[in-house]
Amino acid sequence: MLIVMKASATPEMVVQICREIERMGLNAHPIQGTRTTTIEVTGNGFPVDPDGILSQPGVKEIIHITQPYKLVSREFSSSNTVVKINDVSIGAPEIVVMAGPCSVESREQCMTIAKLVAKSGAKVFRGGAFKPRTSPYSFQGLGEEGLKILAEVRERFGLIIVTEAMDTETMDMVAEYTDIIQIGSRNMQNFSLLRKAGRKKNPVLLKRGMSATLEEFLMAAEYIMAEGNHNIILCERGVRTFANHTRNTLDLSLVPAVKQISHLPIIVDPSHGTGVRDEILPMSRAAVAAGADGLLVEVHHDPVSALSDGGQSILPDMFEQMMQEVRAIAGVLGRSCA
Amino acid sequence: MLIVMKASATPEMVVQICREIERMGLNAHPIQGTRTTTIEVTGNGFPVDPDGILSQPGVKEIIHITQPYKLVSREFSSSNTVVKINDVSIGAPEIVVMAGPCSVESREQCMTIAKLVAKSGAKVFRGGAFKPRTSPYSFQGLGEEGLKILAEVRERFGLIIVTEAMDTETMDMVAEYTDIIQIGSRNMQNFSLLRKAGRKKNPVLLKRGMSATLEEFLMAAEYIMAEGNHNIILCERGVRTFANHTRNTLDLSLVPAVKQISHLPIIVDPSHGTGVRDEILPMSRAAVAAGADGLLVEVHHDPVSALSDGGQSILPDMFEQMMQEVRAIAGVLGRSCA
Amino acid sequence: MLIVMKASATPEMVVQICREIERMGLNAHPIQGTRTTTIEVTGNGFPVDPDGILSQPGVKEIIHITQPYKLVSREFSSSNTVVKINDVSIGAPEIVVMAGPCSVESREQCMTIAKLVAKSGAKVFRGGAFKPRTSPYSFQGLGEEGLKILAEVRERFGLIIVTEAMDTETMDMVAEYTDIIQIGSRNMQNFSLLRKAGRKKNPVLLKRGMSATLEEFLMAAEYIMAEGNHNIILCERGVRTFANHTRNTLDLSLVPAVKQISHLPIIVDPSHGTGVRDEILPMSRAAVAAGADGLLVEVHHDPVSALSDGGQSILPDMFEQMMQEVRAIAGVLGRSCA
Amino acid sequence: MLIVMKASATPEMVVQICREIERMGLNAHPIQGTRTTTIEVTGNGFPVDPDGILSQPGVKEIIHITQPYKLVSREFSSSNTVVKINDVSIGAPEIVVMAGPCSVESREQCMTIAKLVAKSGAKVFRGGAFKPRTSPYSFQGLGEEGLKILAEVRERFGLIIVTEAMDTETMDMVAEYTDIIQIGSRNMQNFSLLRKAGRKKNPVLLKRGMSATLEEFLMAAEYIMAEGNHNIILCERGVRTFANHTRNTLDLSLVPAVKQISHLPIIVDPSHGTGVRDEILPMSRAAVAAGADGLLVEVHHDPVSALSDGGQSILPDMFEQMMQEVRAIAGVLGRSCA
Repeated sequence: MLIVMKASATPEMVVQICREIERMGLNAHPIQGTRTTTIEVTGNGFPVDPDGILSQPGVKEIIHITQPYKLVSREFSSSNTVVKINDVSIGAPEIVVMAGPCSVESREQCMTIAKLVAKSGAKVFRGGAFKPRTSPYSFQGLGEEGLKILAEVRERFGLIIVTEAMDTETMDMVAEYTDIIQIGSRNMQNFSLLRKAGRKKNPVLLKRGMSATLEEFLMAAEYIMAEGNHNIILCERGVRTFANHTRNTLDLSLVPAVKQISHLPIIVDPSHGTGVRDEILPMSRAAVAAGADGLLVEVHHDPVSALSDGGQSILPDMFEQMMQEVRAIAGVLGRSCA
Repeated sequence: MLIVMKASATPEMVVQICREIERMGLNAHPIQGTRTTTIEVTGNGFPVDPDGILSQPGVKEIIHITQPYKLVSREFSSSNTVVKINDVSIGAPEIVVMAGPCSVESREQCMTIAKLVAKSGAKVFRGGAFKPRTSPYSFQGLGEEGLKILAEVRERFGLIIVTEAMDTETMDMVAEYTDIIQIGSRNMQNFSLLRKAGRKKNPVLLKRGMSATLEEFLMAAEYIMAEGNHNIILCERGVRTFANHTRNTLDLSLVPAVKQISHLPIIVDPSHGTGVRDEILPMSRAAVAAGADGLLVEVHHDPVSALSDGGQSILPDMFEQMMQEVRAIAGVLGRSCA
Repeated sequence: MLIVMKASATPEMVVQICREIERMGLNAHPIQGTRTTTIEVTGNGFPVDPDGILSQPGVKEIIHITQPYKLVSREFSSSNTVVKINDVSIGAPEIVVMAGPCSVESREQCMTIAKLVAKSGAKVFRGGAFKPRTSPYSFQGLGEEGLKILAEVRERFGLIIVTEAMDTETMDMVAEYTDIIQIGSRNMQNFSLLRKAGRKKNPVLLKRGMSATLEEFLMAAEYIMAEGNHNIILCERGVRTFANHTRNTLDLSLVPAVKQISHLPIIVDPSHGTGVRDEILPMSRAAVAAGADGLLVEVHHDPVSALSDGGQSILPDMFEQMMQEVRAIAGVLGRSCA
Repeated sequence: MLIVMKASATPEMVVQICREIERMGLNAHPIQGTRTTTIEVTGNGFPVDPDGILSQPGVKEIIHITQPYKLVSREFSSSNTVVKINDVSIGAPEIVVMAGPCSVESREQCMTIAKLVAKSGAKVFRGGAFKPRTSPYSFQGLGEEGLKILAEVRERFGLIIVTEAMDTETMDMVAEYTDIIQIGSRNMQNFSLLRKAGRKKNPVLLKRGMSATLEEFLMAAEYIMAEGNHNIILCERGVRTFANHTRNTLDLSLVPAVKQISHLPIIVDPSHGTGVRDEILPMSRAAVAAGADGLLVEVHHDPVSALSDGGQSILPDMFEQMMQEVRAIAGVLGRSCA
């Protein structure tokens, strides 16, 4: 059960409600949002008398939610969440394409790619400054130098920036330079990182863990929302299976499943989701046809020399073709794509 | 290595080539097709002298194939296989939709559904007369009575019929009544059944096994082709994974992967592939967007009373909507759908 | 619900009970066992009056079973099924080891291996005469010639024989030569094959499918039992997962799970279960420690030249060591091993 | 390639070697161990002249390692790593059992359980003070209060303590109270956390990720070792598969696989590995039979009231029986167990 407080409710009113809940042998978890406070009630005590609570000062409404996810659920918000950054809206009818290299490798590399993807219609530029790598001896990203390059891309091309924050230590720095903070698959259940992201003002792009169920994925988003940050973009990026014709198995069925039980926008990453260049275009079309709100795609002008993930990056002219195809599919669904 | 004989080659010429191959310490497997014979050469003996073989009477060409799959591979046939039944072509630009109930339950049920799906544009009617069921105590299908009902559907509505043959004993009977013989997921590596289907004149719809790799799937088709039946339609129907928001995980990335290495048409079954009614429309759109040549969908006018798989069947008006959406997606790809 | 008839019940009495059940709007499935008949009752009609039924002539008892599996369940038989062939008992305290080559390759090969494994304590000789192979061009087994070699092994070394029947066509022939009929993983849901095995007198070794759940595995055994053959040996042989350090992931947790809900014996195949020679000994020990009633192991005196699965076969001296280790583990559990 | 410096090598000597390596166009990564420094050489430059390097002051030996894992590999250390804490040795012939509740719930709960498990032969006490929970609304652990209780358990019962550090922020605090720092499955690729653990003096218990391959698991350990901490205990705890008779699929084949390519000790957690109480004893026996160096088991005197994971906890008398059985299996393998 969630007790939603009025925007005008004072801290004292919240404390008062919590006390009352606890007197009934239940637990009250106040969730401080940016504008309102919500009190999550858990436990097995006396049944709560809704009328009694509703009559208290500061209480706006009571929401009964039976699923484990509360704030991320459709029951909490019947209208779709639209994440807005400048003039870009994710979760709106327009499909938003995020493109760029796997890693920020150099100023020149980023400017070259950014120019090309912006021309083709990408609205968001992606690129890793901090890279989670299986081996400690692999290239780990340029760090702050990479973040500065990303900031320059924003300046020059007017692109929104998304980049990964790998740990709580560097998240403050990442948050300063980037627009959207990405939480990677390996960190989907790094709860301290989720909590910290929940206290940031930046929207968060949360990638599904490699073997996360739908419920675990939504509960990870719940961690972020419970801290007050409601601007979350979910991202399907393939899961681990026995199948070996792709690096991961892209689970597009997650898109309609999320749409049904959550109000959050969801995008698809066909690059990590398949790991195979020739799969990117067909799976991008399929993702949009399935109802995805956007795409996250690796583009590199010189994949052979890429420091990471070259084999799954598409070339700029493939990206241009992808945009055309995605635009056409979007149109059929009554959506658009720049 | 494959040695393709001319259509005019006599059996004696084939025997002569095989003898020569075996004299080199290699194995020769003559594959008798409907019009031509192909000799598969395997083993590690003396290297074959291509010029020597090519100069023999009856030899048309030599194809070097390095993958384990031979006849199913793009190297064997650079042009796409189009399976033609009456005026329906599977693997051609037109997307072919196969629809009908999970099981043939009664004459009335089939006529009702057939009329509705035909009106919406389905070209092929599906329905099981022999049903593979996990439990021996579940409804096992109407058997020959069901096949007769399917034959009547063909008569009345001009629909092509596809139905499953579960074993070699009943395949002859199934083949007589149906147009397309379906080999189910559980039988994808029932090699005796595959071989028998390979000796039939009917086209074969081969469903991917629940945990089959791409290679195993294509090798199953190879078993059919090696017996001379080249009219095979592959069908992706979801695989087993940890994910639990759908009954299976529909692996659409298989579609472009098959297209790249094989000339065979591939369709998608979103009904078994997800097991969730609300997933059928989005995943049908996604399948076509990914490049599928057709769809296999369960439709029931009264799913609650269905004897099997009611929960994943769509209603006739959802099917009508699905057809419209699929038609629109097909159009974007330069394809059509009745 | 199961109605167990007395051994002395006449066919007429069975018919009478069935009629009565059907008059209540329920379905009656008489299951003809070797000595007694059991009537499985399904459907949603009037509640059955147990006293009324029990008072009928020929009725021994009524068993209420809530799981989907009936005959295979502990509720049907509280005592463990022991499969007896000559002086070998599978499911008894003694651990039974089945060993031999993947394929019967030649008379000499089988005699060599049989002599060695018999000396080390194997009681059952394994070897495939009909081989299910992914590729139609791979060695498919010696067929009847192989069965004759197996029969000779029995003659000479007094070993019980287990070999696979791949289809209903050749099952009669296989059944004549072998003691135990093996149903392979790929055929675990080949229901016609299961049914035919259920009508044989030979015990059946049923291997778990590559992605079969516990319930599906037990239901496959139920198909065999429902035809009257109660001598079934289950076999865990690894399942498909993302893990790549072994060919399959051997799921030993299935052993205690089966023991808890079924009365059937279960053995483990570490050879197919791991596909790695160095895993065979530790996993054999682990299987016995987990409670397995036996092992099925590939042994070859010359694995490099083996026509199939050489890489996972162990050498005779490794097998001798395995037997010693398994014997020691068995002893700790109060069991023995020849 | 690894260049191992002598214990007597000065920092200047290390710098000198690194400079030389870099002059060849290669990269040198000095890895400061507790007693010696190892220089990891990567990149594609001039081939290194081993004799030239070996003749330099301070160089002890050169190790050529072809796998991606270096320090964790058998090639780096042919003798098994034994992690010693007080009088307990993990990786030695004696099997070490770690037992205790899932979560530290109260002083009384821990003292009760600790007394019982110590009596039965456990050498290490487990219990979470910081709990990674799927839901932000679930019990998250007692935090520092819990750590204090664990420290008191050590005082009173002489047990070694292992508890999880969930983030870099609280790792210092955890490290102060505990003996062994646990890194949980969800954090197996939280590289910042691994690095921080690598700079601690405490031994580290590293749990396999839910869908981690063997290589990824060993590379995670490599992250820790590369920072200088060589006292790592690996832990298999089940992986995600389609199988549903257990919560995870316990992959015991990992134990012999790790033993073959790494010198690190490996233990098994049958509690999380199966999630089913009745599986704990058989799978504990199986784990030890497969070669595990220890077990990590959840024990609770009152599982019904447990705040987390009650359903998979065993009762103290089951634990006593488990110890007896494990001791017997250990004896058979020439090992012991307290």
